[in-house]
Amino acid sequence: MVILCAMTSEEKTYEEDLAEETQAEILDLLKAKNYIAARKKLHLLDDIETAELITETENRLGIEIAIVLLRMLKKDQAAEVFSRLSPEDQTGIITRITDYEIKTIIDEMDFDDMIDVLEELPANIVDKILEKSTPAERKLVNTFLNYPEDSAGSLMTPSYVTLQQEWTVGRALKHIKAVGMRSETVYTCYVKDRGRRLLGVVSLRDLVTRDADELISEIMIEDVVFVNVLDDREEVSEVFKRYEFFAIPVVDNEKRLVGIITFDDILKAIEEETTEDIERMAGVIGTDDKGYFETSILRQVRNRLPWLIILMASAMLTGLVIAYYEMQLAAIPSLIIYLPLLMGTGGNAGSQSATLIIRGLALGEVAPKNALKVLFRELRISLLTALALSAINMTKILLLDGQPIEIALTVCSAQIIIVVIAKSLGGMLPLLAKRVGIDPALMAGPFIASLVDTFTCFVYLSLSIVILSLF
Amino acid sequence: MVILCAMTSEEKTYEEDLAEETQAEILDLLKAKNYIAARKKLHLLDDIETAELITETENRLGIEIAIVLLRMLKKDQAAEVFSRLSPEDQTGIITRITDYEIKTIIDEMDFDDMIDVLEELPANIVDKILEKSTPAERKLVNTFLNYPEDSAGSLMTPSYVTLQQEWTVGRALKHIKAVGMRSETVYTCYVKDRGRRLLGVVSLRDLVTRDADELISEIMIEDVVFVNVLDDREEVSEVFKRYEFFAIPVVDNEKRLVGIITFDDILKAIEEETTEDIERMAGVIGTDDKGYFETSILRQVRNRLPWLIILMASAMLTGLVIAYYEMQLAAIPSLIIYLPLLMGTGGNAGSQSATLIIRGLALGEVAPKNALKVLFRELRISLLTALALSAINMTKILLLDGQPIEIALTVCSAQIIIVVIAKSLGGMLPLLAKRVGIDPALMAGPFIASLVDTFTCFVYLSLSIVILSLF
Repeated sequence: MVILCAMTSEEKTYEEDLAEETQAEILDLLKAKNYIAARKKLHLLDDIETAELITETENRLGIEIAIVLLRMLKKDQAAEVFSRLSPEDQTGIITRITDYEIKTIIDEMDFDDMIDVLEELPANIVDKILEKSTPAERKLVNTFLNYPEDSAGSLMTPSYVTLQQEWTVGRALKHIKAVGMRSETVYTCYVKDRGRRLLGVVSLRDLVTRDADELISEIMIEDVVFVNVLDDREEVSEVFKRYEFFAIPVVDNEKRLVGIITFDDILKAIEEETTEDIERMAGVIGTDDKGYFETSILRQVRNRLPWLIILMASAMLTGLVIAYYEMQLAAIPSLIIYLPLLMGTGGNAGSQSATLIIRGLALGEVAPKNALKVLFRELRISLLTALALSAINMTKILLLDGQPIEIALTVCSAQIIIVVIAKSLGGMLPLLAKRVGIDPALMAGPFIASLVDTFTCFVYLSLSIVILSLF
Repeated sequence: MVILCAMTSEEKTYEEDLAEETQAEILDLLKAKNYIAARKKLHLLDDIETAELITETENRLGIEIAIVLLRMLKKDQAAEVFSRLSPEDQTGIITRITDYEIKTIIDEMDFDDMIDVLEELPANIVDKILEKSTPAERKLVNTFLNYPEDSAGSLMTPSYVTLQQEWTVGRALKHIKAVGMRSETVYTCYVKDRGRRLLGVVSLRDLVTRDADELISEIMIEDVVFVNVLDDREEVSEVFKRYEFFAIPVVDNEKRLVGIITFDDILKAIEEETTEDIERMAGVIGTDDKGYFETSILRQVRNRLPWLIILMASAMLTGLVIAYYEMQLAAIPSLIIYLPLLMGTGGNAGSQSATLIIRGLALGEVAPKNALKVLFRELRISLLTALALSAINMTKILLLDGQPIEIALTVCSAQIIIVVIAKSLGGMLPLLAKRVGIDPALMAGPFIASLVDTFTCFVYLSLSIVILSLF
């Protein structure tokens, strides 16, 4: 966890410009093979900007020059910068540097950063790295690598401060002074019994505001909120949002303390979780947490195609409904002009409701048990919305299009029915999905719109037969 | 900021059941007017569960009984619980309790919680509360209330620890011991010059690991990352994500330190920001941060209707295109069967690309300057996707539907063109929007789908004239 970070100037936007300028200058110097001048400028960049520069160097001048750049850094900075590169760049570098260099970088990394790096690397590279560790280290790393992806275990770090309950506050502070710089955080310290079970937690704030001779057992909080090592990161982020902790202890099934998760790791996890949700809502079903440019073209196709095929199948059903009413359409061709409008409005109206409910479910504001309440709300909202839309539509069809009243009546009454159906389906299907254990995000816009298309054709064309027969 | 929080049992799911059971029991006791027994059970709930119980009591037994419940709490807990109620419940309670009680609750609250509460309350209630403050408090509160909504100023707290640069570490720790419990955080301390300008920051980790006689001026970090009081919360959360800080100093235009923002406040801000983005992507344009059930029906209609009207206007354009090709459709009625399929696939394909780019923009992975790169990627992805989809479609039209080859060719070549157009538009429009200063989230599914619908009708029907004339 980075606590403070140096910047090189006083004005924020000005700083960013300056960093970009420095990056460009260093790139030029590297291109001209003027490595000494490039090295001199490197201290103007922070770790994040240096990582950006290495990626850019790799893209423009090749990986060998990127490695030259990495070798210019002090070993602790090299480790920090390395952990911020993409897995592709990391693999490329690891396969090209010496074993000694690999060990130096890995040794300098925070434990949880190292696990993140190792998780993304190919197995043979991981083996190569682990060869250089002590058996104890290797065992610990392997344990961590074996936790399921996205579990609390895969997010946690084993480097926390342990205090003894019989210690005084003064002794505890002395202990923190000795081990503090090696721990992920010193702001929450943990007290365990002989069986490594969690007895309590003490915040550093308590330690520095209490008197030196008070006992840890007296000031520790005993009823601690914790998560299980196998809990999904979604549950972990719920706990963070609910309690506003900045570190949460992780225990195994025997309630032994095995690690802690700090807020910076959960910030990333929440972001990835949200991205996954948003992408699923648009029918992009990928399981990797890579950025847009990091995902290969073929992988993108594989993420996008399945849902498009499923929705195409549903659209074929809509085609069948139209085929069934072909006679009616042939008899009154102007009906077809309003079909895209009805399908569009229905899909959009349903998509709005589905999105609100899916987000409400994700934030814990809505639950499947609220189904009736949701339905009642959506019915009222959809009725008001539909009336407004069809009033506009009615005016337009009669005055601008100059269509007869029976066409206007057919289109507008169909629109009201369709918007009500769409918003009710949009409100209910995510709740139903959640109830039966399907990800509600899949019930978003594209799915609801396809479903509503079928309803639209059926409602509109069957209604037209009824209404037009009246005139 | 809550650092640690007590729970009442060892098993998490069991605990939650227990809390719900206790809440139900207390509700029953309140109903039976057995207030003494209810009070005895209250300590089994934490602040969050107590706030839930008060809301539930208000819904079921009325606000008077909810106030009875609030009065059973110790004053510090009452303040904490009160700050977690909805603005409606807060207003209801404030208008019914005594002035002395109001003052007690407000005095016990953290400053940033108090500002959050005051921001949501009606102006006359705020005035009533401020009457009870000292002129200095009133001035401070008014300053904070005047920062724009969603600005760094509206998120920050003025309660942080200030150190003098000429102090020793030992003196600084003594100072923290004296003021620590009244500050929002003690984990980052700030050093200012006489003009209140920020000189540097010192982490408590540094203080407890350094020797007592070192000087603050020697150990403080001088190049500090900060935000301006008027920066949008989106920029602030970018800084948090980039640097993984847990507190960031906020300065005014004269670079004077005016407050700090802690990670727990930004966690909420990021969540609200994301919700706003997701809702906009579905065409729900509201500016409040209320939950689904907290937003009134009329407000929901107002949030949803405008975008539906805009999209309906765009669908009318699609109707015009169809009207233009009415002769062609009348001549070959089976063309119409495949129109929903083409419109659906186009909309969904475009929506996928738009969503990925909008999310990429929000996360800073994609920028308008990458437009050409995005276009080239989307062209390749869309071509592969389109070929796969139209192969399936071709088989189905020829074998299952038994349509002649010219219809199949028309539909499938139209599908390829439409998917390529849709994905290119989906990739480019969010970037264009960002460039010209419109929220890219508006360029999501519904908008792209409506636009693509028009293209679809035009491409499909004009193509049918060309291809069918060849046979």
